[in-house]
Amino acid sequence: MNRVTQRRRITKFRIGGQTGRREDVLAGEEPLEIRLGGSAFTVTMRTPGDDFDLVAGFLVSEGVIWEPGQLPSLRYCAGVDDDGRQTFNVVEAQLRPGVELPDTAMERHVYTSSSCGICGTASIDAVRKSSRFDLADDTAQIDLDVLAGLPDRLRESQKLFDRTGGVHAAGLFTREGELLCLREDVGRHNAVDKVVGWALREGMLPLRGTILQVSGRASFELVQKAQLAGIPTLAAVSAPSSLAADLADDSGLTLVGFSRGASLNCYSHPDRIAA
Amino acid sequence: MNRVTQRRRITKFRIGGQTGRREDVLAGEEPLEIRLGGSAFTVTMRTPGDDFDLVAGFLVSEGVIWEPGQLPSLRYCAGVDDDGRQTFNVVEAQLRPGVELPDTAMERHVYTSSSCGICGTASIDAVRKSSRFDLADDTAQIDLDVLAGLPDRLRESQKLFDRTGGVHAAGLFTREGELLCLREDVGRHNAVDKVVGWALREGMLPLRGTILQVSGRASFELVQKAQLAGIPTLAAVSAPSSLAADLADDSGLTLVGFSRGASLNCYSHPDRIAA
Repeated sequence: MNRVTQRRRITKFRIGGQTGRREDVLAGEEPLEIRLGGSAFTVTMRTPGDDFDLVAGFLVSEGVIWEPGQLPSLRYCAGVDDDGRQTFNVVEAQLRPGVELPDTAMERHVYTSSSCGICGTASIDAVRKSSRFDLADDTAQIDLDVLAGLPDRLRESQKLFDRTGGVHAAGLFTREGELLCLREDVGRHNAVDKVVGWALREGMLPLRGTILQVSGRASFELVQKAQLAGIPTLAAVSAPSSLAADLADDSGLTLVGFSRGASLNCYSHPDRIAA
Repeated sequence: MNRVTQRRRITKFRIGGQTGRREDVLAGEEPLEIRLGGSAFTVTMRTPGDDFDLVAGFLVSEGVIWEPGQLPSLRYCAGVDDDGRQTFNVVEAQLRPGVELPDTAMERHVYTSSSCGICGTASIDAVRKSSRFDLADDTAQIDLDVLAGLPDRLRESQKLFDRTGGVHAAGLFTREGELLCLREDVGRHNAVDKVVGWALREGMLPLRGTILQVSGRASFELVQKAQLAGIPTLAAVSAPSSLAADLADDSGLTLVGFSRGASLNCYSHPDRIAA
């Protein structure tokens, strides 16, 4: 079974040239249902593979867990599809008794308060989750040359992108530029969740002194995921959003954007970078 | 008030060069809470602006509405933040009596069935929403030269991208290549929802004979959004996912990827393209 990619016959059109049929390789995308305590918690569209890491990282990103012991069991649902095949599209997670779920067990983004939540508070407070880890005391510096070289290191290691041209990547690096974990996915949030979930299950949280390099832009949610995993530096190849920069500033995270080899922009806490 | 962009002091690092402070412009990102019948329905992170279009398009994409009369009223919540300012981050939508909400009024992706939903059905059936519009009877052809020129047309019209380098765009074009509506957002789903919502409110659904050109990749969800708006052709600058191609195939939609000026790939229903 290889559902990470899918072969497909396509039609190639060329301006002023011949139209032809050929085979192409597409990045796999399938729904994953995450179940907690027997009930559906959420469904995310993802590239199959590393599903247990994805579920673990998703729960870290939601602020539900931060230690491997809080997640004693992960397994695929035993059900089958109409053709009698196990789909591997439903993962059941068992939390240690006492681990609290978010107020709503239904949704990543919905606030169930009856008051007008987002009117009544500043935007950033309304959506941010509190982290167990304080980035402020993680003051180790990163060499600019190492940091600037990470996009190339990430790109070289992206096997799926080479075949499909259509996936995002997240790579966790040491301060010395050693790659600890790389994950690719059609959803960039998933790629980060897979890296964070891997680290949780390896007992590595908080990820002090590490750098998370991502292939695309830096959104608010990616900054939040890094913060909840205790990652002090997030570097993106492309632009950050305003709220990503605001949250990074508030939470002590060094946020880097437009990391393009010869130069990079730092949006918060540049003191971690040694030029 | 301009919250579409935000000015920010950043630190620019150059390899072998001087480190300096300068001003940068970031794409705005803030949470938008969508309320239906007085209750929170969802919260999405978006670039402020065209919020009513975003809410309308989101409801079309969820399969809740397909005619402007089903959405008689949209307004910003009257609440204020801690500083007494209206945040414009909560929109209240009023649906016409009789318009049905999805089974769960909580979440875009969660299925509330007690059975193992995604085990028991093929993946694509489990996540797809049924459309009111049949794309199969929309057989008008598009000239290859027009189609191949749309990425450049989109890029030329992207004002926000020029300033920030950090947003996605979605453009709705006629078969003759005329731009009907362009929207930019930090979230590419939002850019498409804003276009679709604009069209709904203009009374243009189904969008027969149009082409939706997007700046990034084509995911399952973008194909679904196009289908629910009655758009027969979706073209992406980058790659589609496997499930995007599967859904396009099933629903009669022409899916184009890697549209790069000199050539483009067609993943489903190439008969609409006249070479």
